[in-house]
Amino acid sequence: MKKIAIIGAGNVGIAAAKALLEAPDMELCGFVRREEKTVPGFENVPVAKNVFELPEKPEGAIICIPSRLVEPVEAKLLESGIYTADCFDIHGELSAMRERLNFSAEKGNVSCVTGAGWDPGLDSVIRTMIFSVFPKREIYTNFGPGMSMGHTAAAKTVPGVADAVSLTLPLGKGKHARKIFVRPEPKADKHAVEHAILSDGYFEHDECSVEFVEDISPYFNTRHGVRIEQNFGAQAINFNMAADNPTLTGNILVSAMRASFLQKPGAYFMPEIPPCDFCEKGLEKYL
Amino acid sequence: MKKIAIIGAGNVGIAAAKALLEAPDMELCGFVRREEKTVPGFENVPVAKNVFELPEKPEGAIICIPSRLVEPVEAKLLESGIYTADCFDIHGELSAMRERLNFSAEKGNVSCVTGAGWDPGLDSVIRTMIFSVFPKREIYTNFGPGMSMGHTAAAKTVPGVADAVSLTLPLGKGKHARKIFVRPEPKADKHAVEHAILSDGYFEHDECSVEFVEDISPYFNTRHGVRIEQNFGAQAINFNMAADNPTLTGNILVSAMRASFLQKPGAYFMPEIPPCDFCEKGLEKYL
Repeated sequence: MKKIAIIGAGNVGIAAAKALLEAPDMELCGFVRREEKTVPGFENVPVAKNVFELPEKPEGAIICIPSRLVEPVEAKLLESGIYTADCFDIHGELSAMRERLNFSAEKGNVSCVTGAGWDPGLDSVIRTMIFSVFPKREIYTNFGPGMSMGHTAAAKTVPGVADAVSLTLPLGKGKHARKIFVRPEPKADKHAVEHAILSDGYFEHDECSVEFVEDISPYFNTRHGVRIEQNFGAQAINFNMAADNPTLTGNILVSAMRASFLQKPGAYFMPEIPPCDFCEKGLEKYL
Repeated sequence: MKKIAIIGAGNVGIAAAKALLEAPDMELCGFVRREEKTVPGFENVPVAKNVFELPEKPEGAIICIPSRLVEPVEAKLLESGIYTADCFDIHGELSAMRERLNFSAEKGNVSCVTGAGWDPGLDSVIRTMIFSVFPKREIYTNFGPGMSMGHTAAAKTVPGVADAVSLTLPLGKGKHARKIFVRPEPKADKHAVEHAILSDGYFEHDECSVEFVEDISPYFNTRHGVRIEQNFGAQAINFNMAADNPTLTGNILVSAMRASFLQKPGAYFMPEIPPCDFCEKGLEKYL
């Protein structure tokens, strides 16, 4: 039974905690969060502002904080000899992220699985397998329509934003539009808020529009979906998935945490790990 | 550039040869088949009855003969220090097969990937990944409607059968019916033929019927499909694939051959291999 801490107690952190309760090979030994108060539904689980202040030192840590905050936290955990898994989701920065984490993982003689969420993560494995079979054809990944957790979290960090929801609208062939609903802070400069959102790296590559609203709740829905497709002539491959977004991400993170313990020291992406390492047992049933 | 031999020059062997032509890291150095005659479309490729009689000793061999003939052939190749990949497809015998091949692979200090076809194989990886994320829910694999290569090959080996096609008809929730069209040999005992087919391990678990026809060609169509599904509540995962069956199997075998060279000595199933090992390059593009 490996002892696991969860870093961050937002939607994903709570989902990962629930997934850990179902995992027979790991147990939750604490949350790390900014405010040292118990997590709803997990009142008996220790909480600390720092992983080293938890009653027990964890063997693994699942990192559930916004992507841009992940690296220094994860590097420190790895260098302290704690295995990790994260759902870092900024595609353009994955390689650099892995290189830096690899350094820390080797230093701590442990492993981490980075980019272990819905996409990158599970989708990356599906794309890699499709690519391995039909390497010459394009693969398109279409998200939504649904709420993007990464983009929502990014929009919320913009000064002047009280709350936000970013919806992903598929345009086909892997192209997307995004609609960001923002509840501004009372005296926010709306023009500056809109500009800051649209020029953020999360948004600058897509067709995005910002709408200011008094209440974001009509737009808040954690169900999301993806369709990965490769089609040409007689060949047609489609992977369709719809799920509650934090639940799925939490489940993937717990599987990645399990796999992390089985790898040689270093930092890994999910397609670099044998699929059976993500499972607790029972490969034979799925052959 | 790894030199690869193909064992067997039927539908799958020819498809694997075509896939090899597209692989920048491997080259076809010969076919091994019962009759020492050139393979249509590959007139310049050496042919021998035995792999050791080819002009060059291959570094790898892709085994494209009926499943029940695979093991002794593959064991000998492995013990001779030749890496292999096969598409052995008898699900109930996979574990025993792997155990025996593992012995030969370790003896020859090489690796093999066994069960590396459509199913088992690619489908097994998809099922393992779905299982890793939602371990408590059933996964259903639905084939067809289409022609099963394994079942067709099995039916053809029954005494009294001149030619045959076995169609797979999905009944939902992973259940299937099979319809076997048989052109009998002139003096065949049809009752005995039917009994022999229906009691074969390939057919005994499904709802099967045999129909005797003068011409199987109306039923011959190598396009086939699969739908792997796990659905409950808000969660819905569906992997749909339709393709020319031998082409897909040939492509998977070539990817498995590539991966075989990268593993430590032993016998592997596809879900035990990092997905990126099946690809020639370019993981980053698919993250």
